[in-house]
Amino acid sequence: MRDVASEHDLRGITIRRVGVRDIHLPLRVREKDGGHARVVGTFDTSVELAHYHRGTHMSRFVEILARWSKKDVGSAEIREMLHEIRDRFQARAAALTLAFKYFLSKPAPVSGIPSDLDYDCWFAGRLEEESYEFRLGATVPITTLCPCSKEIAQFGAHSQRAHLRVSLVQDDEHIVWIEDLVPLLEAQGSAALFPILKRSDEQHVTEAAYANPKFVEDVVRDAVLAIRELPGVVRFTVECESFESIHNHNAYAYTEVETT
Amino acid sequence: MRDVASEHDLRGITIRRVGVRDIHLPLRVREKDGGHARVVGTFDTSVELAHYHRGTHMSRFVEILARWSKKDVGSAEIREMLHEIRDRFQARAAALTLAFKYFLSKPAPVSGIPSDLDYDCWFAGRLEEESYEFRLGATVPITTLCPCSKEIAQFGAHSQRAHLRVSLVQDDEHIVWIEDLVPLLEAQGSAALFPILKRSDEQHVTEAAYANPKFVEDVVRDAVLAIRELPGVVRFTVECESFESIHNHNAYAYTEVETT
Amino acid sequence: MRDVASEHDLRGITIRRVGVRDIHLPLRVREKDGGHARVVGTFDTSVELAHYHRGTHMSRFVEILARWSKKDVGSAEIREMLHEIRDRFQARAAALTLAFKYFLSKPAPVSGIPSDLDYDCWFAGRLEEESYEFRLGATVPITTLCPCSKEIAQFGAHSQRAHLRVSLVQDDEHIVWIEDLVPLLEAQGSAALFPILKRSDEQHVTEAAYANPKFVEDVVRDAVLAIRELPGVVRFTVECESFESIHNHNAYAYTEVETT
Amino acid sequence: MRDVASEHDLRGITIRRVGVRDIHLPLRVREKDGGHARVVGTFDTSVELAHYHRGTHMSRFVEILARWSKKDVGSAEIREMLHEIRDRFQARAAALTLAFKYFLSKPAPVSGIPSDLDYDCWFAGRLEEESYEFRLGATVPITTLCPCSKEIAQFGAHSQRAHLRVSLVQDDEHIVWIEDLVPLLEAQGSAALFPILKRSDEQHVTEAAYANPKFVEDVVRDAVLAIRELPGVVRFTVECESFESIHNHNAYAYTEVETT
Repeated sequence: MRDVASEHDLRGITIRRVGVRDIHLPLRVREKDGGHARVVGTFDTSVELAHYHRGTHMSRFVEILARWSKKDVGSAEIREMLHEIRDRFQARAAALTLAFKYFLSKPAPVSGIPSDLDYDCWFAGRLEEESYEFRLGATVPITTLCPCSKEIAQFGAHSQRAHLRVSLVQDDEHIVWIEDLVPLLEAQGSAALFPILKRSDEQHVTEAAYANPKFVEDVVRDAVLAIRELPGVVRFTVECESFESIHNHNAYAYTEVETT
Repeated sequence: MRDVASEHDLRGITIRRVGVRDIHLPLRVREKDGGHARVVGTFDTSVELAHYHRGTHMSRFVEILARWSKKDVGSAEIREMLHEIRDRFQARAAALTLAFKYFLSKPAPVSGIPSDLDYDCWFAGRLEEESYEFRLGATVPITTLCPCSKEIAQFGAHSQRAHLRVSLVQDDEHIVWIEDLVPLLEAQGSAALFPILKRSDEQHVTEAAYANPKFVEDVVRDAVLAIRELPGVVRFTVECESFESIHNHNAYAYTEVETT
Repeated sequence: MRDVASEHDLRGITIRRVGVRDIHLPLRVREKDGGHARVVGTFDTSVELAHYHRGTHMSRFVEILARWSKKDVGSAEIREMLHEIRDRFQARAAALTLAFKYFLSKPAPVSGIPSDLDYDCWFAGRLEEESYEFRLGATVPITTLCPCSKEIAQFGAHSQRAHLRVSLVQDDEHIVWIEDLVPLLEAQGSAALFPILKRSDEQHVTEAAYANPKFVEDVVRDAVLAIRELPGVVRFTVECESFESIHNHNAYAYTEVETT
Repeated sequence: MRDVASEHDLRGITIRRVGVRDIHLPLRVREKDGGHARVVGTFDTSVELAHYHRGTHMSRFVEILARWSKKDVGSAEIREMLHEIRDRFQARAAALTLAFKYFLSKPAPVSGIPSDLDYDCWFAGRLEEESYEFRLGATVPITTLCPCSKEIAQFGAHSQRAHLRVSLVQDDEHIVWIEDLVPLLEAQGSAALFPILKRSDEQHVTEAAYANPKFVEDVVRDAVLAIRELPGVVRFTVECESFESIHNHNAYAYTEVETT
């Protein structure tokens, strides 16, 4: 059988990323306490394709991912996966994103009843010659209560669900766990969300949000201040998008920070 | 050229709906004042396929839709389209759904500044032998403010964006316009949404919502009472889904009503 | 604290479904071989609300789901959950849908290399007075290769990914496992999909699809014939939607069957 | 009324983008022939917020967009809108993305029957001090037919729908119209898509695709070669994502090009 993908290419164009996307696999993600969480991962992975190769053998990506899906995966394993991918494809650069829902148990604020909340998280690694970058990402749902609405209204203030989304890079000596990042981010909204709230809990979160009004601008700035305190953070992005209850559109704030 | 789709089928199975879906076409929808609104429509249309035909000539659907997309379309035209489709395919039954964003201008509650809000609407027709049914559907964004939260909290009450979705059938003598249905539905929330709100307007909607707390159950019941008053309504469904600001899940209520 | 949700309601309107939607929880689904698969479930659950109650205590749903998410869940457990929900809410009727990605290992057709493919599945139960109905649903990706295109073209025939979606009800004595339903459905397309295909495998699936051209109408009819053979099937729906490679819209066929 | 958003901020953090997202408005986009197309636009617009301002007056964005939605909009108007936004907010930088479905009429390849195909397009502008950048983006659906599958199979070759997505920046002297960009991109697939295909047309596109097999890598390289020929192109990105008919995941290739 002739191998068309291995043919020599004459167009002279290197392609930055060639790969597979939207692959679903069950896998285990390392937890802070040494255990692992079982998640359903969605992968997007690629290599740089040198100008002289016509194509990539896409099935190899799936073989590599399938093998790693039997192990516990954390930032160190993402690095190993990228080295394996790069070697297997003899590529100059390789990249991988793994997105998954992650669950953390949290007690209701007054009754203490524990329940599991879901967070959309992702690992994103990129290996390019000698340089390696790993990003941890998380989208944390929060409540925002509008400071302007509170100020001008005699009673009440509009609130809504919002998403606080962070993606961060640390230096080689440090690692932040999802278990630590999520509570840090939840603390930046007007209030945090909970799956189960008894009436005493609902009273608490309602009053807490009213006492702590925040624009999306406030949430982003407070998140910047908090993330800067994490050890070894090199750079990060923060975005807050608020699904305004008085509008049919969203308010948002986004920024990028280099910590030097 | 042999026409495979026209072959005789021996499996003995009539198929209820065979057609095309997710076709996008610009078109004109009749407005209440006699004019028309230009919308981008998404069509889903089908015929019943008799057991003795192997297949349907799908391109005919697109030809028919393309021709109608040059005219003003309202409930009467949906009926004509369905008759044309049924005749062209020599089918016992035909169905069509046309979904589109519809814009209505509304003044801000205090400043009076007008702005256009978008509503997801749809027409759904079904023709089956002598029986014809036409449904008008609309999803209207509203604010819900939680009665329980207001009752138990010393200050404030959580609010959020919610969707009130209605689909209704009237008898042959009556027709309700989107222009009339949407304001009727917006009046059932704790407050309505607006694209532009100056500070005096924001004060108004904040205080209005706080003065008018509603569960999704309340919104649905009040919508049932309001829709029942429309002339000639034969049956309808109502659903309210509230994107709770204190949870990462939604509260909803749904019911079906036959008015006899 | 006054309990607003428990107030007496005077509007006289019973609501068919009041509940929570889009709740995510990790859980274990019973496998055919007696083990369990760990999945991420999305729940939608509700009760009928009698006309004299103003509201529902939504947090109870989450408490019940959270408890069941620690156990192995199959059709029998869905029934138990519904009984528990109905009792806890003192409701006449209760309903629950649990959707999840389910993975099945399958060998490539020639090389035999095993890999895990993902299927969108769901359990849907409804309890209403003495009547109980359980539906198993699955969306199976397949290849469709167009018979018309093959017939009229000198070389080749267009093919594409399609979704075959089935939802079925069996009598109390029978149960079909996802492990059995999925391969049955995959056999109805022009060819099945695989995560990993080496070149010999790709040759096989290409030639298999070309030898087995099918319209969406063919897929639905063949699926009807196959599902009818399952023991104890009372009623089912079948839909095939094909993401046509020559159009920017989809072809589809849908039917409902009562087996009496 | 105290204006909370205008307060002085002491956190010392400039935010790169603060604004509104997911605003829908009907508007008119300039056509190549001097007319205009009526589209439904989705806006995302923002300004940089200086470190000493607490918040932004979000309603101003909506007022500005609403006013422009009454005019014909093209790249020149996006620039004017951004200048107006920047001035109104006294900001150092402003950005705006406007996404819309655009329809182009095309004749079927043999029968010549014309029909309108929809393309997802967008304008993205960014104004930062003296620098201005305008990007035109389009996602064009195409057919890809796999060269490997054709080579190794005795008959047939798998094909599928794919998306070719391009975003490009030109210098100030040049402008490419969607009307010219889209056909250029459609020519890079194995075959183009059409809403209406009679049997003679279907024969044509089937045979054309079989005669012209392409990997996503081929599509991206050929698109790079074609876009480079457009006058005044400064930089662009190209991505092809193919919804493989033999897999439940997608193949993709992406690259970025600076033309110097």
